[in-house]
Amino acid sequence: MTARTAKGQRTRRRIVERAAPVFNTRGYAGSSMSDLVRASGLKKGGLYNHFSGKEELALEAFDHAAALMRERFGSAMEGRDGTLDRLFAVVDAFGSLVEDPPVAGGCPVLNTAVESDDANPVLKERAREAMEVWLRLIGCLVKEGVASGELQPDADPRRTASVVVAALEGALMLSKLHDDPAHMRRTIDHVKEHLGSLTAAGGGGA
Amino acid sequence: MTARTAKGQRTRRRIVERAAPVFNTRGYAGSSMSDLVRASGLKKGGLYNHFSGKEELALEAFDHAAALMRERFGSAMEGRDGTLDRLFAVVDAFGSLVEDPPVAGGCPVLNTAVESDDANPVLKERAREAMEVWLRLIGCLVKEGVASGELQPDADPRRTASVVVAALEGALMLSKLHDDPAHMRRTIDHVKEHLGSLTAAGGGGA
Repeated sequence: MTARTAKGQRTRRRIVERAAPVFNTRGYAGSSMSDLVRASGLKKGGLYNHFSGKEELALEAFDHAAALMRERFGSAMEGRDGTLDRLFAVVDAFGSLVEDPPVAGGCPVLNTAVESDDANPVLKERAREAMEVWLRLIGCLVKEGVASGELQPDADPRRTASVVVAALEGALMLSKLHDDPAHMRRTIDHVKEHLGSLTAAGGGGA
Repeated sequence: MTARTAKGQRTRRRIVERAAPVFNTRGYAGSSMSDLVRASGLKKGGLYNHFSGKEELALEAFDHAAALMRERFGSAMEGRDGTLDRLFAVVDAFGSLVEDPPVAGGCPVLNTAVESDDANPVLKERAREAMEVWLRLIGCLVKEGVASGELQPDADPRRTASVVVAALEGALMLSKLHDDPAHMRRTIDHVKEHLGSLTAAGGGGA
């Protein structure tokens, strides 16, 4: 790699890192090219040297934000043994998005999903793929727990994934709207009780 | 009322009714004045005779959409007796937003909350008030159920409200993102089981 392309890649990366919180707080439609140029610290022409336009930059900023979220879930699970312990680690990592999101503005997948679902098929597809990763993570943990005998045989991976993701994303929205972490705290307590009821010792249903 | 002001009010109302689905699908930032003029069927000047600008129209369109939601919850509860039956009616009414929303685009409170929470304090306040109504409705039903003895004495109104609203709003987002009503269906099953566990006969905790 020449010094010149290395420098170009660093600049491109810096533009993406600085664009991500702009999109995640103002939304795609609410972020103007001037907002993004200002955040990048470059001149307008400088930004167009790296990106064809707002959509290309938004997709890369989304991928960057989604990768930071995956890293957070990954490191939360490190060193955790057992299904319930790993599920709790993921739930707590999600809860941390209320007060300490990796990118300002909360969950980029929720924000992009709600803005794009009726409006922007390209962004919607990207949000859908990222949400699918998060649903599959919960579903796989439940499957593993059933296989190991830690969870009851009738614990349902798909249902558990839908319920856990829906409750936590909804609680994040409520806590941000009301500037009150209590909605997330109460929802986390509920989700953990529900997951506990799926263990072989827990006595609940699927 | 003169014929002229009555006609003005009808026009104003028609503008609001036609603007509501534009805002609810494209978002506030994503809806241009030209989109709104086109939807209204008036000339640009005609729209400015009635509204000072996009924000005034957005607030009135939001109030209109939120009122349609309240009507749907209200009529779902009509003729229902008992706490659990009324809670189930509200849950099912919410579930109907996936395939038959009163305003195209899903839940206006969710959409406005997610777009405005970091971006538009006036719209955020409006969404917060509407969400508060919905949280209080669930909370009051739980309180009444505890008072009547239908629910267990330790059923927690605030916790139940946070959990039910979070789960259903999150499930609506998932079902719209994945174009798959299964997320809502699974979440409704879970929420009803949870509410059932709060009854005096249900055997669950708060």
